[in-house]
Amino acid sequence: MPKKIRLGILGGGGDSLIGVLHRVASFINDNYEIVGAVFNPNHEDSLAFAREIDIPTNRIYKDFDTLVEEELKLPEDERIQVCSIQTPNFLHFPMAKKLLENGFHVICEKPMTMNYEEAKILQETHKKSGKVFALTHTYTGYPMVRQMREMIKAGELGKIHKVDARYYQGWINPIIHDKEKRSSVWRLDPKKAGISSCMGDIGVHAFNMVEYTTGLKVRSLLCDFNYLYEDNQMDVDGTVLIRMGDHVKGVIRSSQVATGEENGLAIAIYGEKGGLRWEQENPNFLYRLSDTEPIQVYKPGHAYNSELSLEGTKLPPGHPEGIFDAMANIYKGAAKAIRGEKYNDGEFPTMEDGLRGMNFIENTVASHKKGNVWVNMD
Amino acid sequence: MPKKIRLGILGGGGDSLIGVLHRVASFINDNYEIVGAVFNPNHEDSLAFAREIDIPTNRIYKDFDTLVEEELKLPEDERIQVCSIQTPNFLHFPMAKKLLENGFHVICEKPMTMNYEEAKILQETHKKSGKVFALTHTYTGYPMVRQMREMIKAGELGKIHKVDARYYQGWINPIIHDKEKRSSVWRLDPKKAGISSCMGDIGVHAFNMVEYTTGLKVRSLLCDFNYLYEDNQMDVDGTVLIRMGDHVKGVIRSSQVATGEENGLAIAIYGEKGGLRWEQENPNFLYRLSDTEPIQVYKPGHAYNSELSLEGTKLPPGHPEGIFDAMANIYKGAAKAIRGEKYNDGEFPTMEDGLRGMNFIENTVASHKKGNVWVNMD
Amino acid sequence: MPKKIRLGILGGGGDSLIGVLHRVASFINDNYEIVGAVFNPNHEDSLAFAREIDIPTNRIYKDFDTLVEEELKLPEDERIQVCSIQTPNFLHFPMAKKLLENGFHVICEKPMTMNYEEAKILQETHKKSGKVFALTHTYTGYPMVRQMREMIKAGELGKIHKVDARYYQGWINPIIHDKEKRSSVWRLDPKKAGISSCMGDIGVHAFNMVEYTTGLKVRSLLCDFNYLYEDNQMDVDGTVLIRMGDHVKGVIRSSQVATGEENGLAIAIYGEKGGLRWEQENPNFLYRLSDTEPIQVYKPGHAYNSELSLEGTKLPPGHPEGIFDAMANIYKGAAKAIRGEKYNDGEFPTMEDGLRGMNFIENTVASHKKGNVWVNMD
Amino acid sequence: MPKKIRLGILGGGGDSLIGVLHRVASFINDNYEIVGAVFNPNHEDSLAFAREIDIPTNRIYKDFDTLVEEELKLPEDERIQVCSIQTPNFLHFPMAKKLLENGFHVICEKPMTMNYEEAKILQETHKKSGKVFALTHTYTGYPMVRQMREMIKAGELGKIHKVDARYYQGWINPIIHDKEKRSSVWRLDPKKAGISSCMGDIGVHAFNMVEYTTGLKVRSLLCDFNYLYEDNQMDVDGTVLIRMGDHVKGVIRSSQVATGEENGLAIAIYGEKGGLRWEQENPNFLYRLSDTEPIQVYKPGHAYNSELSLEGTKLPPGHPEGIFDAMANIYKGAAKAIRGEKYNDGEFPTMEDGLRGMNFIENTVASHKKGNVWVNMD
Repeated sequence: MPKKIRLGILGGGGDSLIGVLHRVASFINDNYEIVGAVFNPNHEDSLAFAREIDIPTNRIYKDFDTLVEEELKLPEDERIQVCSIQTPNFLHFPMAKKLLENGFHVICEKPMTMNYEEAKILQETHKKSGKVFALTHTYTGYPMVRQMREMIKAGELGKIHKVDARYYQGWINPIIHDKEKRSSVWRLDPKKAGISSCMGDIGVHAFNMVEYTTGLKVRSLLCDFNYLYEDNQMDVDGTVLIRMGDHVKGVIRSSQVATGEENGLAIAIYGEKGGLRWEQENPNFLYRLSDTEPIQVYKPGHAYNSELSLEGTKLPPGHPEGIFDAMANIYKGAAKAIRGEKYNDGEFPTMEDGLRGMNFIENTVASHKKGNVWVNMD
Repeated sequence: MPKKIRLGILGGGGDSLIGVLHRVASFINDNYEIVGAVFNPNHEDSLAFAREIDIPTNRIYKDFDTLVEEELKLPEDERIQVCSIQTPNFLHFPMAKKLLENGFHVICEKPMTMNYEEAKILQETHKKSGKVFALTHTYTGYPMVRQMREMIKAGELGKIHKVDARYYQGWINPIIHDKEKRSSVWRLDPKKAGISSCMGDIGVHAFNMVEYTTGLKVRSLLCDFNYLYEDNQMDVDGTVLIRMGDHVKGVIRSSQVATGEENGLAIAIYGEKGGLRWEQENPNFLYRLSDTEPIQVYKPGHAYNSELSLEGTKLPPGHPEGIFDAMANIYKGAAKAIRGEKYNDGEFPTMEDGLRGMNFIENTVASHKKGNVWVNMD
Repeated sequence: MPKKIRLGILGGGGDSLIGVLHRVASFINDNYEIVGAVFNPNHEDSLAFAREIDIPTNRIYKDFDTLVEEELKLPEDERIQVCSIQTPNFLHFPMAKKLLENGFHVICEKPMTMNYEEAKILQETHKKSGKVFALTHTYTGYPMVRQMREMIKAGELGKIHKVDARYYQGWINPIIHDKEKRSSVWRLDPKKAGISSCMGDIGVHAFNMVEYTTGLKVRSLLCDFNYLYEDNQMDVDGTVLIRMGDHVKGVIRSSQVATGEENGLAIAIYGEKGGLRWEQENPNFLYRLSDTEPIQVYKPGHAYNSELSLEGTKLPPGHPEGIFDAMANIYKGAAKAIRGEKYNDGEFPTMEDGLRGMNFIENTVASHKKGNVWVNMD
Repeated sequence: MPKKIRLGILGGGGDSLIGVLHRVASFINDNYEIVGAVFNPNHEDSLAFAREIDIPTNRIYKDFDTLVEEELKLPEDERIQVCSIQTPNFLHFPMAKKLLENGFHVICEKPMTMNYEEAKILQETHKKSGKVFALTHTYTGYPMVRQMREMIKAGELGKIHKVDARYYQGWINPIIHDKEKRSSVWRLDPKKAGISSCMGDIGVHAFNMVEYTTGLKVRSLLCDFNYLYEDNQMDVDGTVLIRMGDHVKGVIRSSQVATGEENGLAIAIYGEKGGLRWEQENPNFLYRLSDTEPIQVYKPGHAYNSELSLEGTKLPPGHPEGIFDAMANIYKGAAKAIRGEKYNDGEFPTMEDGLRGMNFIENTVASHKKGNVWVNMD
């Protein structure tokens, strides 16, 4: 009998986007229940946020160490089983390490650590712990990305010889071109953000996709960064030549100054027998290319997909998964109304819409049956 | 202080797709908590499903009437506030009516009722009740559909003169062409499914979109159905000519035999000053047409969108809302691992991925700083 | 041994777009040579245009009747073999009739005649003549439209049951909404333009495509026009329900007030075993839909296409046929330079571009061979 | 008074694709007349081809030197004014040089020469000659590529900081993976094909586009080739890091082993104030990106385009330039019929189609006027 997993949250309070994303994701498949948290360094803020999202406040702790200490006092079948780390980057390593050492499973936002040295230490801790460690390279959760992996694994492209991944955003553009802003924002301060901005934040996703989909490892790389200004020390753009084996070459391109690009992650893989292309902004379309056959467009949920891909779809073909959010918006509007809050006209369909609909359906039948004549709506 | 709304579920148990959709949607914005349900006509099945998704079983009732009776005995601040009706169509009307009469808010799947007569009765009940009634015309929850509505309301297209909506699916194709199947499936039995198949199930969505986005009402219509076979009495395809005002005309097209179409809902609205086009299978792209200017592509989450549209987005531009599902898939994989269940390789990123990532980032910095030379990965 | 066909032109002088289109088309496959013409009702204008496009003026006649009379005096192996009729609509019928009666082949712009009565008469004349009569329903010349036809003919969709064609333009929008303009333009004057504007001009193309691709005939139809204003008597928008056989139904939609649409011709055909979709604004992509397989995208020039389709491609896959025009633009720029006329910078690539290119290629080789190091361009 | 320019052709006979492309392009704007040629090294083949495409044979010379010698004997107003060089690569340089030295204008296929040394010599010759030299970097002829150039020149993107160009094809894939083929094909023989395959053939186009659109020059580059096999000495894939100024960086990617890619030329340019994206396989769509505004899609022929772009369009918006070819296919079918040759059903619309069309139009009017009733077609 499945029982919801007891989840603890570290960070992700208030308006945090990453907080929303993790919380929603934890609900979607009925697997997790949030039982404890440190949403915010300020305990009052943490408690307020817990009340806002209606989570019991008795296990909202004042800090991370207290959370670990207090949870360990609880009987094992009440204790937090897994913590989701959504804090600023420099806390990922110490938190993950302590959690694993104390027998908790860990779900961790990327970057996993501040540097490779820490990563190797954490790997050791993890090995000893026997616990689950999941890193949220979110894009590998897309059904069609999983389908790419499985098709390549099954040899459908033959030997891979060429790889091209891109992650282009433009959001740092208004900051980088403003001398004032670029010298003050924490993202461009190596002391706060680590050794890399663009490559560390998004290039690494493209890198992960390349290894995830091909099953190959990058053996060596050559990189060129662009800092754009002499007084800036952090990469806001970078291109990486990669080699993944004998005569298997490729390129990873990432940018935060690709003006107007939003979240332009894309990947193309070419092998002896075929090619595959996928773009994050149209995640339900996977293009399979061939020398001799028409292009094939794979979409989620069809029986022709692999088990791994089908594992990641909940709805029938043609429903972009965003439909959950469309439906959630209807529920949100209804919630406002139920609570007696102000809401905009158009936030959810009403009785009136139902009435119109039934009138419409009946009239279509009447028009048709009478020999395709005009019928007036009420 | 927001408090989660106490939600009751009617239907939607087991593998029900509509059940998943409603349940996920209710979680997404932290607004609802499921406190009671009749998931299934069979009480044992209802209880089993409650255990499966880990909901307390004490308020899983044996039938709908018992639910109403028992809940009314509870103090008002514990009682179900709103019921979500996800049962077969013929139950929508009696359930909604009784719920409203007993002071419950209602969220109801479409069709609202089996016919227009019932719809008018329900409207009366609703008016007297003073309760919220929300019908889940899901597509109106999409941010870009809401944006259409607001742009048209603001007069950006000028006077509307032409409307074109389409809802094409092909799923009934393998059924309708099989004599055996088409005479046995409940969807094509007028006694079970109501007076219309295609128009009642999907055409009505297209109709709703037309009225929702334009703010205009269909005044009269002329319809032609296609039954495909003499021995079939239910429409599997239909085209409706519509008139929405003086010289405002349009067409609604719907089909369940548009072979290979998945969930092809699309809408185009044209007015004196411009046009708007939207398709459900690429829901984040809204095209604005003009006689004299370049086409403009609106996307969710940007400040240029209306308040109603922005109300419906949770993430920054470029993240298709489906990303929640991608993240949810990562959480799902981790849940399997935490529970010690079998999972496929590739279901969630691991420590190894984190390690590779840090190695990658450090090496890109090293390559660049050494003058763009090749650096080996570990 | 092929010899170019001697072509006469009627109409199409000056800035006429249809004139350009026919003239270029006649050149493209080295089949035709223009030897005579009446470009314009005014003989001086006709002569001036002939000089402008550098065609010998000795067979530029003062009017159509003179052309027929004089050409008949020439020996048969010098005489015009075929005339291309590009005049205003009301002249199509009398010219075509007289040409056929006098032993000329005819290429004729649409509409073929002003009404069905004339069309039937012309059919009789044509039968007696034994000459070729080609009507320029241009869109049937696209390789992928031909491919649709052949795939359907070969039974790849099974029995067709549903057809949907659209031809949406928005160009009449600024005219129709201006009282002054809509009462003066010849297009909206039934005396000059015939009985229909939108349906006669573009709806008929959509109709032709439906019959061309399916091989089926429309048996009956039901139509609704929109005139938009009481003082306008010509359709600027219309929707037609069609029946093409027992249980084969469809819709043809056409509009000149679909604001912002340019030349939006599109067609979708659905049968028991599959569907096909094509759009004129992306003419090289033909989508084949199936209930169970990934979508297939057919493109021109591949060996998997039919003979009829391949007959219509001159270049290898991936070169949109528009590349002829791109190359023609280079030639046009060079022509200006050769003639010593003024031209814009950027109209054709120069020596300087060639030099840069060679420098680039050599440097890429040098950089690679030296171990992927930076090399400066000259 | 314009007079057609007298054009000589070198190479491009028989089935040569490049020959078709140049010949059609020279016809399209009524600027050129082919008066002399050496289509083929074999004189008989040259003459046969001239007869096939119906060009007078008296100036079809036995070789290039004879052509120059004989043409120089003709009076200047009969003499070839410009020669179009479409021969194998190694002949481009000597032919272009001799032509310029003898007072002929030159249109030359790329690569301009076999190496940079020759290019510099040719540049000197050109300067002294005072003649026009046009290199057919065809893609710069596309209206939307020209529009990119003009928008950037007008400062619409602000200072450029990032450039990304791609030219991916997959055609060499079946050759390179076959040991027999890859050691015998002239394209992969450095003695015959020059120093580079992929970069020399297509990478250089991407390079040209980058300089053409931005108006900037590549200052330095770093390149990595892929030969795929040890026994192959020619690049079939290559990635080039480029620097175009202080902090202006970019990447050029080219491949002949991007399996299934056809002619995948694409370019993206990003500046402080915006971005532009264009792809050759959808050449009529130019995407303009911005941090704060909706994406804008520019299309050819609109008044909002630059003069340079409008100079390159002949038809109104919405007609892909490929429509010339569609029309040409109709003319081609009619030519077969006129010559009494065999042709496929469907190659051109006939009288029957015209008749159907008139019947259709009249019936739509009748159906509408009678109150939207069904009307039978003949």
